Amino acid sequence: MGQNIAIIGATGAVGQELLKILEERGFPASNVKLCASPRSVGKRINLWGEELIVEPTQKESFQGVDIAFISVSADISRELAPYALDAGAIVIDDSSAFRMENHVPLVVPEINGDDLLSHQGVISIPNCSTTQMVMALYPLHVANPILRVVVDTYQAVSGTGLSAMNELSLQSQSILNGENTSAEVYPHQIGFNVFPQVETFLPNGYTKEEWKMLEETRKIMHSPDMGVSATCVRVPVYVGHSEALHVEFSHPMVPEEARRLLDEFPGVTVLDEPGGNSYPTPWSISGSDDIFVGRIRKDVSCNNGLAFWIVGDNLRKGAALNAYQIASELISRDMLRG
Amino acid sequence: MGQNIAIIGATGAVGQELLKILEERGFPASNVKLCASPRSVGKRINLWGEELIVEPTQKESFQGVDIAFISVSADISRELAPYALDAGAIVIDDSSAFRMENHVPLVVPEINGDDLLSHQGVISIPNCSTTQMVMALYPLHVANPILRVVVDTYQAVSGTGLSAMNELSLQSQSILNGENTSAEVYPHQIGFNVFPQVETFLPNGYTKEEWKMLEETRKIMHSPDMGVSATCVRVPVYVGHSEALHVEFSHPMVPEEARRLLDEFPGVTVLDEPGGNSYPTPWSISGSDDIFVGRIRKDVSCNNGLAFWIVGDNLRKGAALNAYQIASELISRDMLRG
Repeated sequence: MGQNIAIIGATGAVGQELLKILEERGFPASNVKLCASPRSVGKRINLWGEELIVEPTQKESFQGVDIAFISVSADISRELAPYALDAGAIVIDDSSAFRMENHVPLVVPEINGDDLLSHQGVISIPNCSTTQMVMALYPLHVANPILRVVVDTYQAVSGTGLSAMNELSLQSQSILNGENTSAEVYPHQIGFNVFPQVETFLPNGYTKEEWKMLEETRKIMHSPDMGVSATCVRVPVYVGHSEALHVEFSHPMVPEEARRLLDEFPGVTVLDEPGGNSYPTPWSISGSDDIFVGRIRKDVSCNNGLAFWIVGDNLRKGAALNAYQIASELISRDMLRG
Repeated sequence: MGQNIAIIGATGAVGQELLKILEERGFPASNVKLCASPRSVGKRINLWGEELIVEPTQKESFQGVDIAFISVSADISRELAPYALDAGAIVIDDSSAFRMENHVPLVVPEINGDDLLSHQGVISIPNCSTTQMVMALYPLHVANPILRVVVDTYQAVSGTGLSAMNELSLQSQSILNGENTSAEVYPHQIGFNVFPQVETFLPNGYTKEEWKMLEETRKIMHSPDMGVSATCVRVPVYVGHSEALHVEFSHPMVPEEARRLLDEFPGVTVLDEPGGNSYPTPWSISGSDDIFVGRIRKDVSCNNGLAFWIVGDNLRKGAALNAYQIASELISRDMLRG
């Protein structure tokens, strides 16, 4: 007997990636329910050779469900989660709605899987740019506590969703044709452009995305005092977030040690041969499960510093894969409800 | 009587921009000679309503020339500069060939115009990513000495030249058509991709471009101990370099003070209203002379820190405009040779 699962937001960029992962990995589900917003209802999706029809998302969607993967906006997550809990489901939520609540574990299984033990029905997965960063920070932090992280991101449009991927294509084609463009999804043109805004602004001048990289990193790594300063930037890339990191440790760390620690950590691959122009890029790693690290070198501007470059598929480890791994962890630890 | 000037590399991206600037600003030239590599010889270019024919670059190109603007590779600059000096010309060189030599002023006129006083015939302009950074750092540094700068760049392909701009277009169109692409100019695909390599690698793991941002910044700002750690990244943008900066000062500096200091500095424009999604982007500022600064906020990860975002046209202030300004400065200070 497998699990009954529901995927809420099944036709979105993350929902689609989750279906791919379920198919690749053979998740032990006996029943899969796909739910989406009204305009996607009735769509037919193949999974394990069976045709599933997308249903509307409603209160009753969670009846008989063991695990609900929710990948919708924070507002809609807040609305839906109570129905899922009432129905006895465990919620694995991709939005920012619950991440910083004390009773909600915010989990990257390779790092803080044990935080699942205290769950009360809702488990959050971190923001995509945070997940890939902590995957690269944690193995170093365990060996040599990190004091401060400066990070600047190069974020793909799929983090926003399919509409943004479409906007990037349309704008790019218009510009190549010498035509004017218009921006619908983003506040600025993204085709052949970059802009330093992911999500809306807080009163302190940081964006919500930048603040998540601070708060979520501290929570996942149980390091409430770690300094993090991020600038989050959208770039004209479809899939794969890149991040330039400058990290200060408590003690000296040579690049060779960092390479070894990162390479030994599950889910991380070091790709770092500058002589051969070898380092990860979003185009080359999209579709991969691992977080890739390259350009590891001493940060010459401070003591005990390293600079490096990481790239991860924001839809996989940044979202769907991490959610899938949490579900697997719950099953293997026999932690489902009911 | 105006000056006799020569533009070496007249058909390149920077040479073309310099011609635009000469035309816009009415440089006092009595004669303009355009030189380029063999494949561009014979091209006709209009300047001030006159048709100029591109000549081959050779030893004799500098006879009778007062100011030679050289915008070619470092190797070719090294070859040509001695001929120019022998002919009595002043060289304003855009390459990295001479920048770090002790007797060569490396000049951004708004910052260290007085360094021109010691010139011995060759004056270098800084690397494009350095120039825009020091324009934003200097007015702050004068008020509150900077200890450390962390900078990650988002660099346009026009920094490489017209061939790279063409490659970006071709690759982007192929990808939009669902076709395969090939990379000729760069080691990796740039269409819908980013990669952390500008120029070749040094043994210490930094690229030459990153190292220039350290060494040139120290030289221009007369601050041999300033810490600078850069990661330089190429992005699929035609014109306009962007940089995310995290700066540590000797004393506290509030964002309001930084805004005021930057706004008062010639050649810098503050564009910083996050509430209205207002900050510079390369698409919106390309073609402008100024360096634009936005996203100014306290760096929450360190004492006395500010984070901000700058964008400049890499062909204008990053190259041709800065060279033009140096020539103007030499004329107004009556510092030409002969």
